[in-house]
Amino acid sequence: MNPVTQKLENKWSEKKFVCVGLDPELTKIPENFKNNNSISEALFGFNKSIIDQTAELVCAYKPNCAFYEAEGFEGREALLQTISYLRNTYPDIPIILDAKRGDIGNTNSGYVKDIFENLGVDGVTIHSYLGKEAMQPFLDKSDKLIIILVKTSNKGAGEFQDLKVEGKSLYQIVARNISSNWNKNGNCAVVVGATYPDELKEVRKIIGDIPILIPGIGAQGGDISMIKNGLNSKGEGIIVSSSRGIIFAPNPKAAALKMHEDILNSLK
Amino acid sequence: MNPVTQKLENKWSEKKFVCVGLDPELTKIPENFKNNNSISEALFGFNKSIIDQTAELVCAYKPNCAFYEAEGFEGREALLQTISYLRNTYPDIPIILDAKRGDIGNTNSGYVKDIFENLGVDGVTIHSYLGKEAMQPFLDKSDKLIIILVKTSNKGAGEFQDLKVEGKSLYQIVARNISSNWNKNGNCAVVVGATYPDELKEVRKIIGDIPILIPGIGAQGGDISMIKNGLNSKGEGIIVSSSRGIIFAPNPKAAALKMHEDILNSLK
Repeated sequence: MNPVTQKLENKWSEKKFVCVGLDPELTKIPENFKNNNSISEALFGFNKSIIDQTAELVCAYKPNCAFYEAEGFEGREALLQTISYLRNTYPDIPIILDAKRGDIGNTNSGYVKDIFENLGVDGVTIHSYLGKEAMQPFLDKSDKLIIILVKTSNKGAGEFQDLKVEGKSLYQIVARNISSNWNKNGNCAVVVGATYPDELKEVRKIIGDIPILIPGIGAQGGDISMIKNGLNSKGEGIIVSSSRGIIFAPNPKAAALKMHEDILNSLK
Repeated sequence: MNPVTQKLENKWSEKKFVCVGLDPELTKIPENFKNNNSISEALFGFNKSIIDQTAELVCAYKPNCAFYEAEGFEGREALLQTISYLRNTYPDIPIILDAKRGDIGNTNSGYVKDIFENLGVDGVTIHSYLGKEAMQPFLDKSDKLIIILVKTSNKGAGEFQDLKVEGKSLYQIVARNISSNWNKNGNCAVVVGATYPDELKEVRKIIGDIPILIPGIGAQGGDISMIKNGLNSKGEGIIVSSSRGIIFAPNPKAAALKMHEDILNSLK
């Protein structure tokens, strides 16, 4: 089995499905992390606090590149420190880099080098628009998890994703191709927003037991009671992600615990 | 007029249509740039040499993020130095960051901050899959050029881009939406690979005078004689990009000049 999926399975067997998005927007971080600190110290200090409060509850962490790139060198340093801290302190928890990359094959090799060699994370999110042939450098990483956008959580996701192709929606065709052709190394997963519970059910029908990363809980308003639509044949296979709703809550630990319990209640 | 399009128009009026892709893959850079130098010095030294050899011939430069991210901090430093050098030495030449970013709106704001504030480039390439609503933070930058992937240059581009929707191909629908709805600030452009000359003609019919970034010349095998399919009603509007075919040529200046002349001959 894919070693990242194995790590996830271990967490799922403990009934842990929450993924915390480590998206430390500088302006939203509490002041006490910023006092007398460099930007990288503030971002990392905040992340470390969130991680230590939530590590017992989660199946994965998901830093999103954009929030680190926004702070240049300082952001990069904070991302490296965060990954290093997770690796050393909680090596059993997979790290997914939410990077949404996607270029031609030759160029993707550069991204693959940065993401899996320099940063050393376990999984990454990517775009599908250029097709499997272009994304092969990602798909060749058989010991990593390659998570492809299928139905995104945002309000306007349908502009292209819901277009009708051969009687199906485009997002269904993307899911079908991933399942039938992209997943030769057994290292694919997909993204479906919690804000689209019917589509979550549709995608699960198409992809068999492939893991689904489900963002959109919390600030984006996804309905936690419908998360069960994403379960696979083993009653697991879901990575349910919240960022702002947990990390900027007055009590992040309590917010993560509530999400954890809400998920368990909804799966009963 | 959009200030980036204005810069391009100035170059087009001088019959300059070549865009050089500044993609300094470390393993391919000549040894003399690496001797006794740090990685950032090697990457920047190489770029500076390419820039100084080609600046008289080009309408734009296009560094691709992936090649810089592959080298971590050193790559970032080289990218900043390259942009700074271009800004100071050739301020009339627009800089397009080939980043192919695309996330939900809140997150795109982080990318926008990095790309237009930290790095300070003139334009950026983005994905369309999440829809206009998500990409609004890019589209709101009315003084920048936002270049959306329509038909990419790679062999496998058709997997999704050629799917038939309402009797049209998906790439045509993307082009149509950009032209009719995304371009409210007059700051949109599109990507169509030189490797697809028929599609280039189709897209030009759909988008009116919107600029087209045309990669795929050189190493990717695009046919330069068909570039004319991309011309707008003024006989311009094209940014014809080559990376490896110029920068790793034995004589980059001669390679750029040949491409420049081949384009002019094909437009006669």
